[in-house]
Amino acid sequence: MTFREDGYAAIDWLVRYRERVTDAPVLSPLRPGDVRAALPSSAPEEGEPFAAVLEDLDRVVFPGLTHWQSPRFFAYFSTTGSDPGMLAELLIAGLNNVGILWRASPALQELEETTLDWLAGLLGLPPGLHGHIEEGASISTLAALASARQARPGSRVVVCSEHAHSSVDRACKVLELELRKVSADDEYRLRPEKLDLEGACAVVATVGTTSCTSVDPVVAVADVCERDGVWLHVDAAYAGAAMICPEFRWAFEGVDRADSIVVNPHKWLLVPQGCSALWTRRPEAFRDAFSVVPEYLRTPDDVVSFSEYGPELGRRFRALKLWAVLRCYGAEGLRSRIRESVRLAELFESWVRDEPGWVVAAPRHFSVACFRRDASDEENEELMHRVNARGRIFLSHTKLDGRYVLRLAVGSEPTTEADVRLAWEELREAA
Amino acid sequence: MTFREDGYAAIDWLVRYRERVTDAPVLSPLRPGDVRAALPSSAPEEGEPFAAVLEDLDRVVFPGLTHWQSPRFFAYFSTTGSDPGMLAELLIAGLNNVGILWRASPALQELEETTLDWLAGLLGLPPGLHGHIEEGASISTLAALASARQARPGSRVVVCSEHAHSSVDRACKVLELELRKVSADDEYRLRPEKLDLEGACAVVATVGTTSCTSVDPVVAVADVCERDGVWLHVDAAYAGAAMICPEFRWAFEGVDRADSIVVNPHKWLLVPQGCSALWTRRPEAFRDAFSVVPEYLRTPDDVVSFSEYGPELGRRFRALKLWAVLRCYGAEGLRSRIRESVRLAELFESWVRDEPGWVVAAPRHFSVACFRRDASDEENEELMHRVNARGRIFLSHTKLDGRYVLRLAVGSEPTTEADVRLAWEELREAA
Repeated sequence: MTFREDGYAAIDWLVRYRERVTDAPVLSPLRPGDVRAALPSSAPEEGEPFAAVLEDLDRVVFPGLTHWQSPRFFAYFSTTGSDPGMLAELLIAGLNNVGILWRASPALQELEETTLDWLAGLLGLPPGLHGHIEEGASISTLAALASARQARPGSRVVVCSEHAHSSVDRACKVLELELRKVSADDEYRLRPEKLDLEGACAVVATVGTTSCTSVDPVVAVADVCERDGVWLHVDAAYAGAAMICPEFRWAFEGVDRADSIVVNPHKWLLVPQGCSALWTRRPEAFRDAFSVVPEYLRTPDDVVSFSEYGPELGRRFRALKLWAVLRCYGAEGLRSRIRESVRLAELFESWVRDEPGWVVAAPRHFSVACFRRDASDEENEELMHRVNARGRIFLSHTKLDGRYVLRLAVGSEPTTEADVRLAWEELREAA
Repeated sequence: MTFREDGYAAIDWLVRYRERVTDAPVLSPLRPGDVRAALPSSAPEEGEPFAAVLEDLDRVVFPGLTHWQSPRFFAYFSTTGSDPGMLAELLIAGLNNVGILWRASPALQELEETTLDWLAGLLGLPPGLHGHIEEGASISTLAALASARQARPGSRVVVCSEHAHSSVDRACKVLELELRKVSADDEYRLRPEKLDLEGACAVVATVGTTSCTSVDPVVAVADVCERDGVWLHVDAAYAGAAMICPEFRWAFEGVDRADSIVVNPHKWLLVPQGCSALWTRRPEAFRDAFSVVPEYLRTPDDVVSFSEYGPELGRRFRALKLWAVLRCYGAEGLRSRIRESVRLAELFESWVRDEPGWVVAAPRHFSVACFRRDASDEENEELMHRVNARGRIFLSHTKLDGRYVLRLAVGSEPTTEADVRLAWEELREAA
């Protein structure tokens, strides 16, 4: 078989995958070890045709997938690797450029600069920020906090709300920074009056927390940070995408004053996994924290390489997928999809609110509804596992005020009102 | 256009790309800012067809690429995103699974376990190691040294040879560890008798340094590490691939005694960029260093998630591309490609040795030849830039014993003897 024939077969496999993903159990029904047990214990000695890989993709891998591309995937944050995003990944691998320094791929670095400028413009961020792409928000946050630590030697405390993402905990662990968590108000927002910046090198404010998409008051936090000269990092990994719509900009007021901001196009902007946008107005702090240029990477080019701003040396041509998505959807196409997910989450929330025995568990700002049965935590937990085990939808949970809360996250491109209605029917039946 | 039509067009684009990459200048001839200047200053409002992206890939991106897929790319480490690897990237994006925890994609985690076991077997590593995939060796090294630091609180020194990779410097910077560099012998190998492990938490031994692929004496280093209870990390990012061939195993003696080992299948094993294999016999140290499990990731599954062993929370389904490559080439197919690159580098080295006015600058162990004109550093540097500017081949350099040295790295799948011969002719003509 030629590359072309195998390539067409892979495209055809994906076309069929999409047709059948709607009927597959969303959460994989397999038990731990099942996939492993279905695979040989060693690599083959002789090469096999690519068609054999596609066959085993059906036989072994497919049942072990939790279908993130299903229209009824409502867990965590629902994401989509869209058509242009997927095809761009093929091209990325086909070109296989490795951006270790500018001359190793001028197009890679300059498309990354350009698309991050484009995206900053769409989000309403101030012009002139330095933007680059990291693999995920965990790495972005690590990079931002390492830079904050570098910018303020001797200050080893990071302050955030109790609802900040676990990647902040992890970054502090790696960077050996003390994490001071501030209690939240009754809408799960950081209380700025509780901010104690003694010894702090950074504050992390979250716009769209993972638990319940609550929005920290960035303006008030920025005031305190500016007063005390402390780095402000804004984690808008999920909700930042909504900034492309003017009607959601209220949530981002003050974000223009941040020292660093992370927004993940791979979450709610139709880019496949592996694309976290990180902007800063203090690029020198990033270079101070990360730059190491050995002899074998010295060149006469008068250009700073993006590899000097983060923990990676080689970088994939991630900008190509962001570029393809921004081009093929256009700003209006992306806005309409953000709006549709928010509309669906709002609709679901209205059904919960109107139904006796169910309660809305947190204010909904974007495309995630937090809710519960008006019953014990155990009952809610069992309800969720029952619904997930049936396989028609997949939800996840969190805890708010110590209580077990279900989350319905809308964001998948193929999700329609019928899918959200089905989710609600499944939940009501199971309750 | 449908996804299928756009997908076929993307495959066809890659088929044409391969045909014309041979004649394109290997090093992009553009100047800094050229790609940027050819792009609009903002994202489009309206969506465009995917065909428009492919057109601009030709018009704007192509001239700005340094062609890593060219058969005459001899710089850094020459790599290939092979047919099955590329197509697997398409499937990875099409499934868009995000491995934040086991249940989020059992197949992702278990295929990662399985393929790392397969690869460990092929490399002759001891059974029972815990293996997982990171994006690149910089992240793998960061993860390993964070774990070493965690395993020996209070010891803040990392020891390596002066020829260790810059990612060790960067990881130490991020982890605030002191890096103590040991001088190398006349074959650029760490001198074990110079190892002073006072205060050390880790030693990094390199099998196949980036400069000149020298091989540290791992057995002697392991003896000292075991005596002093210090973590041994082996960086075999490039050369580790050669372990699949018995005749190169001499270089890896003692690697089985390492606490952690990194080998990058995206370097010399035909997997597209973004696949660094990391093994350890001390997985608990990794968990101690990285594990953070918030409520919204707690599940009743009795399985430890791979996200607890490194800095990332979400992980791409990288194992799928490693699996596709191992399947489609088979162990024998991979061995024959490793052997062919070594043969070509050896051949090139023999031409250099036999030609008056040229010298071999370092012992060649694998597929990289280090050489220079028997002339001044300036002359060698100018020679390299002249050859690279002509565009028919692309080489990079290093410094050894303070002298400017050229490197010819073979490793690209399409590279033939004719390409290596052309490189030599280009060099001789330019000299």
